[in-house]
Amino acid sequence: MKTLSILGSTGSIGTQTLDIVRIFPNKFKVVALTCNSNIELLKQQIDEFKPEIVAVYDEEKADELKADIPVYKGMDGLIRAATIGKANTIVNSLVGSIGVIPTIKAIDNLKNVALANKETLVTAGAIVMKKLSSSKTSLIPIDSEHSAILQCLNGENVNDVSKITLTCSGGAFKNRSKGELGHVKAEDALKHPTWNMGAKITIDSATFMNKGFEVIEAHWLYNLPYSKIDVVIHPQSIVHSLVEFKDKSVIAQLGMPDMRIPIQYALNYPQRIKNESLPQLNLTEIKELTFKEPDLERFPCLKMAYDVGIKSGTLPAVMNAANEIAVKYFLQDKIRFNDIHRIIQESIGQHTVITNPTIDEIMEIDKKTKEETEKEIEKGMCIAS
Amino acid sequence: MKTLSILGSTGSIGTQTLDIVRIFPNKFKVVALTCNSNIELLKQQIDEFKPEIVAVYDEEKADELKADIPVYKGMDGLIRAATIGKANTIVNSLVGSIGVIPTIKAIDNLKNVALANKETLVTAGAIVMKKLSSSKTSLIPIDSEHSAILQCLNGENVNDVSKITLTCSGGAFKNRSKGELGHVKAEDALKHPTWNMGAKITIDSATFMNKGFEVIEAHWLYNLPYSKIDVVIHPQSIVHSLVEFKDKSVIAQLGMPDMRIPIQYALNYPQRIKNESLPQLNLTEIKELTFKEPDLERFPCLKMAYDVGIKSGTLPAVMNAANEIAVKYFLQDKIRFNDIHRIIQESIGQHTVITNPTIDEIMEIDKKTKEETEKEIEKGMCIAS
Repeated sequence: MKTLSILGSTGSIGTQTLDIVRIFPNKFKVVALTCNSNIELLKQQIDEFKPEIVAVYDEEKADELKADIPVYKGMDGLIRAATIGKANTIVNSLVGSIGVIPTIKAIDNLKNVALANKETLVTAGAIVMKKLSSSKTSLIPIDSEHSAILQCLNGENVNDVSKITLTCSGGAFKNRSKGELGHVKAEDALKHPTWNMGAKITIDSATFMNKGFEVIEAHWLYNLPYSKIDVVIHPQSIVHSLVEFKDKSVIAQLGMPDMRIPIQYALNYPQRIKNESLPQLNLTEIKELTFKEPDLERFPCLKMAYDVGIKSGTLPAVMNAANEIAVKYFLQDKIRFNDIHRIIQESIGQHTVITNPTIDEIMEIDKKTKEETEKEIEKGMCIAS
Repeated sequence: MKTLSILGSTGSIGTQTLDIVRIFPNKFKVVALTCNSNIELLKQQIDEFKPEIVAVYDEEKADELKADIPVYKGMDGLIRAATIGKANTIVNSLVGSIGVIPTIKAIDNLKNVALANKETLVTAGAIVMKKLSSSKTSLIPIDSEHSAILQCLNGENVNDVSKITLTCSGGAFKNRSKGELGHVKAEDALKHPTWNMGAKITIDSATFMNKGFEVIEAHWLYNLPYSKIDVVIHPQSIVHSLVEFKDKSVIAQLGMPDMRIPIQYALNYPQRIKNESLPQLNLTEIKELTFKEPDLERFPCLKMAYDVGIKSGTLPAVMNAANEIAVKYFLQDKIRFNDIHRIIQESIGQHTVITNPTIDEIMEIDKKTKEETEKEIEKGMCIAS
C-alpha cells in the first residue's frame, strides 16, 4: 500500500493523481492533501479521500476552511504534509519555488517523492541529487518527458546513453511569426494544443521556458551533460521523449497525451498497473508523427535555459524567479509575450552567481529576485495593447 | 571474446555481420563461415577473416573451392559449422528451411544463436523454444523488428505486455492496386524501398508473407498469443517495432534502417557497443513518420499467416515450404505475383495437420510440400505476361 501525501491536490496534476487513486483503493491511500487557495475543491477531496490532515498555503483561506481534521497553513503546513509520518510517498505537484523546500524535507524524512514541481530540480538540483545519492529514497519524475526517459532507461546502462531528446508540443504560439508574438495574449496561450495543464505551465510551454526547465531537470535527474540533451518539436505529443544509445539504437516512450499515464507510473514505480480507463495509443488513427527543430530566435528562452543551466550555481534560481513574476504579469495582460524573455534576461544579467549555494541562499535569491523583478516591471510597465 | 560461426556469410546479413566483425577485432573472432554457392566471395572472406573451417552447401561448388583449411559441404557441412567446438556463438543467416536443423544442432551443442533465419521459428518454433527453456543458451533475434521488441522489453516484465506492434515498410507494392498486382514482376519488387535485403526476403516483404513469418516468430520468441500481435505499415522504417504495456505506456525502438544496428546488438547482447560508423537517427531530418493499417485484401498472405500460426502444428512448415517454391518461380518470372498466395493456400488446404510434430516430421513435410508445390506449379504454369 502506498500512503500518499499530495501537495497541490487541487491543481491539474493533483486532481489527475486523485483520478488514479480513486481507481485503485487497494493500492493507494491518501493521508494528506494540500492546496494553495481552492478550499471548495479541497473540501470535496477531504470528503471523498478522507486524509488525516490538510494544509492550505494561503493563510487567509486556511482560516476559512472548516474541517473535522487538522488544517495547517503556509509553508509550515506544506512541510508538515511533506513529512507526515503516515505517508511513504509524497506527490509534489506544487507550482513554483514554494515546492523546493517540501521536496527537500520529504527526502530528509526518507519519503519517496513523485515529483511534478519543476522548481525543485531547476533551482536546487545539485542539493537534491546529492541528498538522494546518500539516501535510500527515490525521486520519480511525473513530467511526461522525464517519465519517458526513465522508462526508456529501464534495463539499460546510463553510461551507454549518447543523447536524450526531449519532445515538445511547441506550445500555443509555435506557428506565430516573430512580429505576431509581440501581440499575443495570455488567453491565446491558454488554448494549449495537446496537454491538460495549469496556466503557469501553459505560458511556460508557449515561451519554451518549460522545455528549458525540463532540460535542466533532465541534466540533474539523469546526470547528463547539457551537450547530450536535445529538444525537438513534436506537435502531436505522442512520442514523449527518446534516448539514443552509443550503438545508434534509439528507445522512445509513446502514449496518448494524458498525464494520468506518467502519474500512475510514478505512483507505483517501478511496477506497471493495468488500467483500462487510460486511453490507448492507436498509431493508425494518429496517422503521422512530425518532428522539427525548435526556433531559438523566436523562442529565446530555450537557449537561455541551456546557458543558465551550464553556468549553474544560483543562476537557474534567478531565471526561474524572474520567469515566475514575468508570467504572472503576462497572465494579467500587464506585459507583452516578448517581455517575458527580456525581463528574465535582465535579472540574469544583474546577478552575481554563487557557485555551490546552500538551500537558504537559493531561497533567499528566489525571494530577492522576485521582489526586484516585480519592482522593475512595475517601474517600466508596458501594458500589452 | 565472441567466437563466431557465420552460416550464410556471403548473403546480405552475413556480409553485414562481417562489417561489424571487421570493426571490432578484439571483440569478435570468426572461426567458421558457410555459403550456399558464392565461392568467389567466400574465398575473399577466408583471406580476410581466416576461419578455421568453411562449408559450402552446394556440393558441386564445394568441390570447386580451393582453400588451405577444411572445406565441408551440404547439410553436414552446415551442421559442422553450427556445432564447431571453437565457436561460442552461431550467426544463422541462412535463407530458407535449410536453416532449421543447424539452429537446433547449435542449441543442442550449447551455442548461443544470433538468428536471422526465419524458418527456424516459423516451422519449428515449439521445438526450439522448448529446447531453449531447458538450456543455458540464448537465442537472440537479428531481425530488426524482433530486435526492437527485445530492446523494448529490457528491464520490463513480459507479463505486463498488452500488445506488440510489428512495423512493416509495406514492401515494394504497397501503393499498387489489386489489378496492378496481377502484372508486377520480380524486378519491380527487388527495388525495395528502405532495407538492404536478399531477393527472397524482398519478395516476401512485397507479399507481406515476411511480416506473417515475423508474427509467428514473435509469438514464439515472446510467448505471446496472436491476439496480442499487431502489424502496422510504417513506410519510413524508422520505428522498428513497439510494445504496449498494460498501463497504456508504449515503448518503441527506433533507428536508421540499417541492419548492422540489430546485428551488432545481437552479436554482443546484452551489452551495447559504441560504433560511430553506424548511421545516427535525426528525426528533424526525417521530418515525419506515418502509420497505416495493412490492406489484408490486397495482401492476403498476412491474414493467412495469422490463421496458420494459430492452427500451428505442421501447418506453418507447409505455408513456408509452398511460399519458398512459389517465390522461386516468381523470381524466375514463371508465375504471377498473385499466384504466390493462391499456391500457398492450395498447399495448406491439402494438408492434414500434425499437432506437436517432431523435427523429422517437420523436415519431411517441408521436403514433400516443396516437391508437390513444384509439381503443381509446373503442371498448371501460367507464365507471367
